[in-house]
Amino acid sequence: MGPRIARLGPTLGQLQRAQRRAASQAASDSDAATVIFSGIQPTGIPHLGNYLGALQNWRRLQDEAQPGAKLLYSIVDLHAITLPQQAPMLRQWKREMLAALLAVGLDPARSSIFYQSSVPAHTELMWILSCTASMGYLSRMTQWKSKLHLSDDASALDEKAKASLKLGLFSYPVLQAADILVHRATHVPVGEDQRQHLEFARECATNFNHTFGAGSKLLVPPETILSPAKRIMSLQTPTSKMSKSDTDPRSRILLTDSAEEIHKKIMAAKTDSTNAVSYDRAARPGVANLLELWASFDARGRGPEMLAEELGGQKASLKDLKTSVADVLVEEIPAIGVRYREFLEKDGGRYLDEVEEEGARVARKSADETMEIVKRAVGLSR
Amino acid sequence: MGPRIARLGPTLGQLQRAQRRAASQAASDSDAATVIFSGIQPTGIPHLGNYLGALQNWRRLQDEAQPGAKLLYSIVDLHAITLPQQAPMLRQWKREMLAALLAVGLDPARSSIFYQSSVPAHTELMWILSCTASMGYLSRMTQWKSKLHLSDDASALDEKAKASLKLGLFSYPVLQAADILVHRATHVPVGEDQRQHLEFARECATNFNHTFGAGSKLLVPPETILSPAKRIMSLQTPTSKMSKSDTDPRSRILLTDSAEEIHKKIMAAKTDSTNAVSYDRAARPGVANLLELWASFDARGRGPEMLAEELGGQKASLKDLKTSVADVLVEEIPAIGVRYREFLEKDGGRYLDEVEEEGARVARKSADETMEIVKRAVGLSR
Repeated sequence: MGPRIARLGPTLGQLQRAQRRAASQAASDSDAATVIFSGIQPTGIPHLGNYLGALQNWRRLQDEAQPGAKLLYSIVDLHAITLPQQAPMLRQWKREMLAALLAVGLDPARSSIFYQSSVPAHTELMWILSCTASMGYLSRMTQWKSKLHLSDDASALDEKAKASLKLGLFSYPVLQAADILVHRATHVPVGEDQRQHLEFARECATNFNHTFGAGSKLLVPPETILSPAKRIMSLQTPTSKMSKSDTDPRSRILLTDSAEEIHKKIMAAKTDSTNAVSYDRAARPGVANLLELWASFDARGRGPEMLAEELGGQKASLKDLKTSVADVLVEEIPAIGVRYREFLEKDGGRYLDEVEEEGARVARKSADETMEIVKRAVGLSR
Repeated sequence: MGPRIARLGPTLGQLQRAQRRAASQAASDSDAATVIFSGIQPTGIPHLGNYLGALQNWRRLQDEAQPGAKLLYSIVDLHAITLPQQAPMLRQWKREMLAALLAVGLDPARSSIFYQSSVPAHTELMWILSCTASMGYLSRMTQWKSKLHLSDDASALDEKAKASLKLGLFSYPVLQAADILVHRATHVPVGEDQRQHLEFARECATNFNHTFGAGSKLLVPPETILSPAKRIMSLQTPTSKMSKSDTDPRSRILLTDSAEEIHKKIMAAKTDSTNAVSYDRAARPGVANLLELWASFDARGRGPEMLAEELGGQKASLKDLKTSVADVLVEEIPAIGVRYREFLEKDGGRYLDEVEEEGARVARKSADETMEIVKRAVGLSR
């Protein structure tokens, strides 16, 4: 275990103050019980939105973590199947995501990386939590509605929902709560869109402790660490999130893109007809997105407003802006792609299996400890 | 393993022809792939209703099974927690049910007996099936409604249901389908009230095979074996099912009741004011229940109608009927109670643990084989 991974250089920056506090508390807490857990769906090779929304932050938390802290990162394949998947694609995407996590700098000697389906305790705890999870509460959650393109006030048994809603998608937040609680995670880095689910996980823990532990801390209500990055938008439709499912490949930059591809995509990014730089998310979404991208990588930690001000002072054109953004990206991204391909091929593919098996072993141990507490409390075991 | 268990003597009888066919097909099928699975909730010491509705039939299937057939009987503790449970009671009731299964004649050298929560694959498969289980279909199932005392046309998101319905109870049929399918059961003995759930399990298997196996038999749609016994009613309110939750202990006979207790309860059974014997379920439910009880134990296999006719010919009184019923029960039940207490205490309680651990080991092996097929088909593993 434990390949030497070149450090990717400092990625300081745009942590807003409150988020910085939360992250550094998680990372530097001298209490040995700090457990950081997060999950990502196996969507194949990550794009910049995945990187800046999650993976970059995961690496940062790893690199700043105290020696006593436990780090668990899961590729949540059981969540992926809440929407239809092609088996060969799912298989491939799991491996690609695993290789990508290593390529961005997660060190398997420090962070346990595993497939969710390798740890049966996730579904075991999910079932136990589901026995106290209210149907009414779950019906008010919004994610299943957005996945089915229903309005936020849709009900799970509306005619429209009934036609397509499966139990798995509806129960998603309960499995996600189990993912977190089964590892007694104290801190969970997530994006803004997962805030509601994290609140649900906290309530699951509190309810469980109240019902089965007379208030004692059988399960740990986790703290949320919101990702410092802004939502990264499509390069072609800057009012929509950058997404794997966009049919236009120029809309996103993949972590495996070459320097040339990155340059091309950034230079072709949709902006507007005002050939000067200013930061205005509402009026100039394309320009704002480029400024935020730059800010996310800026070694001097400048925010998008500050960058816009500096460029404005220099009378920079949009082309100047794009060139700078591309240059900044090219400093970091293509190196990730090189490592990605190395990891994918290493030992004829066996290296990835070994990393995952070891990560799963650690995760099973962590989860089994919690399940022993849980099963005893519920009366399922002695 | 494998204690010598005294055979309980012939229990022939009231198998209606069709049911006899199904059972004997299951038991004598020369195909080595015959797998019989059934589950029972850990409700503590079983009463006559549990015995005649399930356990007697389980033993019969065991005793008639061909050497190649696999027999799996589960104490389904994960289903029990879909309604609130006290942990110490649940723990005790699990052991009591286990001892009772042995006492009625299940031989752990032949039948694998295990707690559902000892086999994580049950919840693993449950999650996978839930990703294709329709919310609309589940909402039409009736068991969750009867458990919450709601009408059969209640919706899961009615105000009344929302106040109390938990995800676990709503999802019950999916876990039950997983229980069966994870062992590739070919035959499932159940009571009439479980027929709807068995149909659902069949559909889960068929849908899964269609979606992930291009129609090949990845999962096995199980055959239902309906229990031959009629529904046993309360001795005090013969229009209601015999039930553990009835506040009047005279309403039921436990498998641990002594000869004296059995006599007392049967003699005190509520009948009616016509002091002669005839079989009429609607007009004379108390008398009919006693006749059916007798028929369930009759070594000569006479049905309740035939018994009523014979007693009518003899001008027997209701007291005569009760005396005969009590005598027939006393021939079989107290011996079960003796064995029950022996099993509960054997080796200071360790014997029960060993039986369960061995049963769970076999069940995990059986389940893991299926999960390998399932995970490969879905794309969760290679």
